Amino acid sequence: MRVGLADAVGRVTAEAVWARRSSPAFDAAAMDGIAVSSAATVGASETTPLRLPPDAYDVVDTGDPLPDARDAVVMREQVHYERTPAGPVAELRAAVPPYQHVRSVGEDVAAGELLLPEGHRLRAVDVAAAAAAGAVDLLVRRAPVVAVLPTGDEIRPLGGAVEPGQIPDTNSLMLAAQAREAGCEAVVLPIEPDDPARIAAAVHAAAAESDLVLVVAGSSAGRDDYTAQVVEQAGTLVVHGVAVRPGHPVVLGLVDATPVVGCPGYPVSAALTFDIFAAPLLAALQGAAVQRRPVTRARLSRKLASVVGMDDWIRVRLGEVAGRVVATPLSRGAGVLTSLVRADGLLVVPAGTEGHQAGEDVEIDLLRGLDEIRRTIVVIGSHDLVLDLAASELRRRDPRISLASSNVGSLGGLVAVRDELCHLAGSHLLDPASGEYTLPYVDRLLAGRDVAVVRLVHREQGLIVRPGNPLGLQDVKDLTRRGVRYVNRQRGAGTRVLLDHELTRRGLSPDDVEGYAREEHTHLAVAGAVAAGRADCGLGILAAARAYALDFVPVTTEPYDLVVTAGLLDAPVLAPLWELLGSAAFRAAVEGLGGYCTEETGRRIR
Amino acid sequence: MRVGLADAVGRVTAEAVWARRSSPAFDAAAMDGIAVSSAATVGASETTPLRLPPDAYDVVDTGDPLPDARDAVVMREQVHYERTPAGPVAELRAAVPPYQHVRSVGEDVAAGELLLPEGHRLRAVDVAAAAAAGAVDLLVRRAPVVAVLPTGDEIRPLGGAVEPGQIPDTNSLMLAAQAREAGCEAVVLPIEPDDPARIAAAVHAAAAESDLVLVVAGSSAGRDDYTAQVVEQAGTLVVHGVAVRPGHPVVLGLVDATPVVGCPGYPVSAALTFDIFAAPLLAALQGAAVQRRPVTRARLSRKLASVVGMDDWIRVRLGEVAGRVVATPLSRGAGVLTSLVRADGLLVVPAGTEGHQAGEDVEIDLLRGLDEIRRTIVVIGSHDLVLDLAASELRRRDPRISLASSNVGSLGGLVAVRDELCHLAGSHLLDPASGEYTLPYVDRLLAGRDVAVVRLVHREQGLIVRPGNPLGLQDVKDLTRRGVRYVNRQRGAGTRVLLDHELTRRGLSPDDVEGYAREEHTHLAVAGAVAAGRADCGLGILAAARAYALDFVPVTTEPYDLVVTAGLLDAPVLAPLWELLGSAAFRAAVEGLGGYCTEETGRRIR
Repeated sequence: MRVGLADAVGRVTAEAVWARRSSPAFDAAAMDGIAVSSAATVGASETTPLRLPPDAYDVVDTGDPLPDARDAVVMREQVHYERTPAGPVAELRAAVPPYQHVRSVGEDVAAGELLLPEGHRLRAVDVAAAAAAGAVDLLVRRAPVVAVLPTGDEIRPLGGAVEPGQIPDTNSLMLAAQAREAGCEAVVLPIEPDDPARIAAAVHAAAAESDLVLVVAGSSAGRDDYTAQVVEQAGTLVVHGVAVRPGHPVVLGLVDATPVVGCPGYPVSAALTFDIFAAPLLAALQGAAVQRRPVTRARLSRKLASVVGMDDWIRVRLGEVAGRVVATPLSRGAGVLTSLVRADGLLVVPAGTEGHQAGEDVEIDLLRGLDEIRRTIVVIGSHDLVLDLAASELRRRDPRISLASSNVGSLGGLVAVRDELCHLAGSHLLDPASGEYTLPYVDRLLAGRDVAVVRLVHREQGLIVRPGNPLGLQDVKDLTRRGVRYVNRQRGAGTRVLLDHELTRRGLSPDDVEGYAREEHTHLAVAGAVAAGRADCGLGILAAARAYALDFVPVTTEPYDLVVTAGLLDAPVLAPLWELLGSAAFRAAVEGLGGYCTEETGRRIR
Repeated sequence: MRVGLADAVGRVTAEAVWARRSSPAFDAAAMDGIAVSSAATVGASETTPLRLPPDAYDVVDTGDPLPDARDAVVMREQVHYERTPAGPVAELRAAVPPYQHVRSVGEDVAAGELLLPEGHRLRAVDVAAAAAAGAVDLLVRRAPVVAVLPTGDEIRPLGGAVEPGQIPDTNSLMLAAQAREAGCEAVVLPIEPDDPARIAAAVHAAAAESDLVLVVAGSSAGRDDYTAQVVEQAGTLVVHGVAVRPGHPVVLGLVDATPVVGCPGYPVSAALTFDIFAAPLLAALQGAAVQRRPVTRARLSRKLASVVGMDDWIRVRLGEVAGRVVATPLSRGAGVLTSLVRADGLLVVPAGTEGHQAGEDVEIDLLRGLDEIRRTIVVIGSHDLVLDLAASELRRRDPRISLASSNVGSLGGLVAVRDELCHLAGSHLLDPASGEYTLPYVDRLLAGRDVAVVRLVHREQGLIVRPGNPLGLQDVKDLTRRGVRYVNRQRGAGTRVLLDHELTRRGLSPDDVEGYAREEHTHLAVAGAVAAGRADCGLGILAAARAYALDFVPVTTEPYDLVVTAGLLDAPVLAPLWELLGSAAFRAAVEGLGGYCTEETGRRIR
């Protein structure tokens, strides 16, 4: 199809573009000055200046066509005028070679020259160059049409009511957006129930109208997974299941000569299935090269095990610490779409590899620019909502700044500071022997290192319980009551250390607490488990209880601190954070979360 | 403004997005299998299998909600069934820990969690995650409106007639497209003549309706350059001229509180002015980080001088030779838009630097992906249209392949092979002593190196003259006739060597040829000079004469060869080219250009 130049940006050329006319189309002045005949200037010098009468030169600006009988330009700055009755006489103190400061016809494009190859994705400069070379429209390849077919009894359209057990159709929204980002038109079809006949009819209809059909979910081998069966019966099933994780229950086939991709229902699997299988296919349909992501080398912040026999696509956060890019793996769950949202890059662990050691040098496909990554504050350690609030507020103030926090517990954070894998560790580790927080651990783990500790907040820790506290839990000792189901934090988390301490103080043992072994990784996840009725109680912060409208029984107030190598205190990457901690508006927002005291916020306590 | 999720991709969040509901909203099976109560499985082992009656388990597929009273899932593969009258009894050979293979409520997003910060440019995964977390629409920042105001008496709208001395308005097309690529709305206003009052009125009107006004041309200091004056009188002139090349006559100011950028009229200057000044401003207006380009290190293929006191933005072609990325500078002319079209990267030589030596390691901002660059065939040397045709045909066959040729003359190409700066050198150097082409030069310049030479074509060289050959030029000796204006090729070009040889044979001297010192760098540029009437005659190939509908007086037939390090002959990067040279269709297309013989095309002559 032919499109006008303004509409051609982003499209792919369907034929080579040869220049029809030269640009510039005439010899033109390349400087402001006077146009002269070079032959007339022979002999001019400092000692024998040449005087040109008004009819022997023309004043020209850059871009003006060279007047007839002129073949060179003298820069304004090198001409002196003398007023005479006949008009200004120009004085030259040097001879001028032919074509000095002349932009020749065809300097940019010569007629007949190859301007753009076929299969080229057009950018702004390309269409402008085509226009200069005489094109008024361009033959471009048609944008492929992608049909997205959501299936599943439990899937509900976005925006409508979602009952328990039902799932909103976020995948179709995402896949259609990915298709549009890949330069295609996208159509989202109505949701089909788990009925192979209906799915088959919908696939046939979609295949007739589109260049690629994406069937969402039903690609696995469960009772209600019909995509492979439908493709096999309606056309040709080429592949069912690929050695890629997440995403391995992928279906690839052809129905009525149209390619069909069955995407897994887990959102990360669906997104990566598009990337790995649909995007190259769509690029090939457009006859253009698939856009590959830039890569960087990075140091892995922790050990990463991988199943041999599968390519493992690991989402990572990136930041630059001590002059090296550090990659921290995010959740590997196929259902954790936020791991893709938060990812700065992708690490592919090939099928033949068992994984990587901590500190190993790996290659990362970049999802964000390295300059943004260099302005990322890397926080590893305990989780606190104040860090989330700071991340949002820093970004609002300057869009180039990120704060990326990984929740591995306070102890893990201190280890990360030791190994130069983060800028800051969030910590609230209680030392039961001294009753002091964090500092005794710093002394032990970071002995001999010059480390600073900055107070972030004081915060209330307490029992998060269901609204109205139906079990009447008033103290940590109540956790040992029969039938009270507790939900704990992971090993190394300060809140778990706090529970252990409170139990010991009361002469109780972890074995007395039902659910002690059940681990969640954040305060919000603990509150979520209580809200869902999966547990009756968990230890956590007030703000998490509030987020889920749960009740809260205070247990203690504790300091939450940031641990940082002293040499990094003045690093430019951290300056915006220190400034933020000093802001009254930010402190007010923190107190507004509930359960926080900001009196000592920003104070260096070591 | 609030927009629906499907329309939000590419927009920038105007507020932080916090999760309103958890995703998943319920505990769900993470595997296909059976849901059980973990407590009921205590004690099961290989030696003491546990038998669960039909009412003690539920068959579940991945994603199904966990039924009441179940808290764990056993994978299908680990369950053996035994048929009984009461229904299938499930046999387990291991105890199941609580929450095994259960996807917990909030595993992806917990209600109350920060999902996306303010100022975040939304991608497909972001809107899908927002949908999963309960969002139905998002508050996004308004797209800035950019007004493009073309000015100049000589500027004509695109698509209309362009008389000699007039210039089509390609800059407005390009700047509007750049603004759209930057996520803005763009409006191109009617062209204003060089009249300060009219330009001022148009700038005021545009400022009232837009967030940024780009005034095209008139930013210099020539007679008709009014942008700075208009901005100064209508508002505040902040900057006039910046130390950036190309592009230094930039005007930056404010009119009625709207920023105004005066762009130079040279297209490369205009494009870079947008990149350097407008793009960061527009990103700031959207409150988002400007997209920075990835970078690479590269080896410079030739010396690059730069004016101290100016940042010099050099367009380069890139390719990988002998395992290293090589950067070859393109034309530095501000009017050579094709240098941006052909560029794979930008090299910024900072104001304080005098330039770089050949072979120096430099940092390049990438305009194309490194994987495409690795598949680029780098040809340095003489120019021939067959190389252009090959470039187009290779790209058509496989969009990931490029052939980049730099025209530095045959001799320069052989030096580039010697220094491992290219894969291939195009050469047609005549050795006057032996009458042989190229091989004697290879022996001298590449002595001791294992070099292969592959014939590309034989081609006719001759005198390119105006239609009808009005001066009746029949032989090289006619070039010495009084009043015949010749246009020559640059030093090191094979065609120049040929002229010298033909002159010597006839006992003539270069001094006898008017215009011998006038140099062009390609056959097409020579033909363009003749077509424009700037010269009467030039030596060149028939295809160039044909491109400009000029006449041609044959002088000789010569071989044009490709010189390559023998070790590279089998390199994968070159395989598509050798295949192409063997194709009958390609040979036919070459002969169709006129003046070519492909009888020996692809034959290795050494």
